[in-house]
Amino acid sequence: MRDRRIVVDDIAEPEPGAGEVLVRTLACGICGSDLHMLQHAHTMAALAEEMGAPSAMDPNCDVVMGHEFCAEIVDFGPDTLGTLSKGDRVCALPVVFRPAKGRGGGPFSPPGVEAVGYSNQVPGGYGELMVLTELLLIRVSDALPSEAAALTEPMAVGIHAVAKAKIAKGDAPLVIGCGPVGLAVIAGLRLQGVEPIVASDYSPRRRDLARVMGAHAVLDPAQEMPFERLAKEAAGRTAVVFECVGVPGVIQQLMRDAPPAARIVVAGVCMESDAIRPIFGIQKELEIQFVLAYTPQEFAEAHAALTEGRIDGGPLITGQIGLDGVAAAFDALGNPEAHAKIIVEPGRGG
Amino acid sequence: MRDRRIVVDDIAEPEPGAGEVLVRTLACGICGSDLHMLQHAHTMAALAEEMGAPSAMDPNCDVVMGHEFCAEIVDFGPDTLGTLSKGDRVCALPVVFRPAKGRGGGPFSPPGVEAVGYSNQVPGGYGELMVLTELLLIRVSDALPSEAAALTEPMAVGIHAVAKAKIAKGDAPLVIGCGPVGLAVIAGLRLQGVEPIVASDYSPRRRDLARVMGAHAVLDPAQEMPFERLAKEAAGRTAVVFECVGVPGVIQQLMRDAPPAARIVVAGVCMESDAIRPIFGIQKELEIQFVLAYTPQEFAEAHAALTEGRIDGGPLITGQIGLDGVAAAFDALGNPEAHAKIIVEPGRGG
Repeated sequence: MRDRRIVVDDIAEPEPGAGEVLVRTLACGICGSDLHMLQHAHTMAALAEEMGAPSAMDPNCDVVMGHEFCAEIVDFGPDTLGTLSKGDRVCALPVVFRPAKGRGGGPFSPPGVEAVGYSNQVPGGYGELMVLTELLLIRVSDALPSEAAALTEPMAVGIHAVAKAKIAKGDAPLVIGCGPVGLAVIAGLRLQGVEPIVASDYSPRRRDLARVMGAHAVLDPAQEMPFERLAKEAAGRTAVVFECVGVPGVIQQLMRDAPPAARIVVAGVCMESDAIRPIFGIQKELEIQFVLAYTPQEFAEAHAALTEGRIDGGPLITGQIGLDGVAAAFDALGNPEAHAKIIVEPGRGG
Repeated sequence: MRDRRIVVDDIAEPEPGAGEVLVRTLACGICGSDLHMLQHAHTMAALAEEMGAPSAMDPNCDVVMGHEFCAEIVDFGPDTLGTLSKGDRVCALPVVFRPAKGRGGGPFSPPGVEAVGYSNQVPGGYGELMVLTELLLIRVSDALPSEAAALTEPMAVGIHAVAKAKIAKGDAPLVIGCGPVGLAVIAGLRLQGVEPIVASDYSPRRRDLARVMGAHAVLDPAQEMPFERLAKEAAGRTAVVFECVGVPGVIQQLMRDAPPAARIVVAGVCMESDAIRPIFGIQKELEIQFVLAYTPQEFAEAHAALTEGRIDGGPLITGQIGLDGVAAAFDALGNPEAHAKIIVEPGRGG
């Protein structure tokens, strides 16, 4: 990302510092957050300042994005343990621990932690080479293709959202929006054995994917009201709604339509100001739980689920491209009929 | 309430229906909701329609408000049990069960339930006589003055808000706004033995009342940041914030200033549209729990706590007036320095 555009260019090769390894990116998913970043980098930087994050990424300097990666170990930096070997494939939490310097870090990172893919200091997975913190590496099983391993991060997002929802017996989930976040939530619900899972999306393609990922009932909100369908599929149960859209107005729409005592889990990322009418929440005693990211345990669980086939992420992958295709892929991802997850393979050639 | 004004007039005496008793009001607290109702009755009626409440109160017809009452049994309607006696003092949940007819009911009441104080069908506690459902009556102990018994309802609101907050070991409460709702929340926290309780209000009078009701640390938000004080008083603990103000902007202010993983319990009633910035909630994984009213058990617990002296509501009562004083009291309650809870005593004479 340079001057608010995606460009392909040669930059200095990253050098692994103490405790770091040099890796070659094999596959890296494009995340909706990256599309947000490209559009709103300056807003996000201003927001980080407002929220008191001192080491915000500088949107005026280059950023190599990409935080959903699978990579191959190329070399070891100083003070590493060498537990894994060169050539081993790895996934990792997209953070690198290093002493704070300059304005590095992601938009909301504390000093000393570089957010891979949102940093001016370390490149992300849309680059050919990255440096990673050795202690965070997870070895990828030979049986798991690299593009599937790259789904670890987005699946962890779904697993986390489901964990924060604290689904109990008698709860009935409703997934609003079946883009990558909603599909990951469906996978996370399925992992927990929750049923029925009701999912809603305007796009036929995404509704198909929702079914494939494990939703039991899928609806088009242009044709029927999501909460009415939920009431039919899971009468008498407590609605737990996953907001996976992330545009202004959706939270209030859910507050207006939700039944009493519903829980709304906000997993969609809305950067703009949004209007709500608190009286709807009060009258129905709604709960809103905002969620973000995942814990290291949830990341490891997502990886294990993909490895063991408890999550089949294959259908999510709707495109595999080389570096020269990234800019076009950012545009293509705006069309829900065309794509769910596009994987960048820097080694694929231009 | 007639034509958006408080008037004193003679109306037909209510007649107790099947299962109902006729009571004479001894004391009835003026609630912030009544002030809201007087200002926003038409908005509330429209809102009730929008939320699908079919039997909304008609703001164009008379309403005798008053739902925080203590009363004395005068007579028994048909099909009553007569477990209590004429002359016994009682409190009750402010609802009367009766078959739906016309447009009766409170603004959000289901058909068949009249919300006492928000109904065109049954008068509330600012009238000399009311009808109540016999099965809901709680006998008031001789030791508890009527004006203190009338605090049962507002104290139940605080007990309920605290229950919905699910305070756990390691949580630290912060009460924003020390009007009657905030003070009831402090009483509810105190009942549970939670400490420290940190409370914030711009008004010196209300800060004094917060201390009297049991807050351990009280601050003026014009002088120091509530969350900074909370961090000092309860370092390392999870913030559980009670929003007891109920005006637009407060929720976003709390979302902006709250530490990560805070829970915001919205007990203040904001009728207007309100702007939030979801990214603050997302970034800090905040939870917002809207709350309203109380369960019958919580109502009974509030009454028991007042009876046994576990809550001393006395300091909350800052005025006792007759019927002719109600209109002026509505105005006076706008000044936080002047009043917390004003008790209407219809028998006091004009």
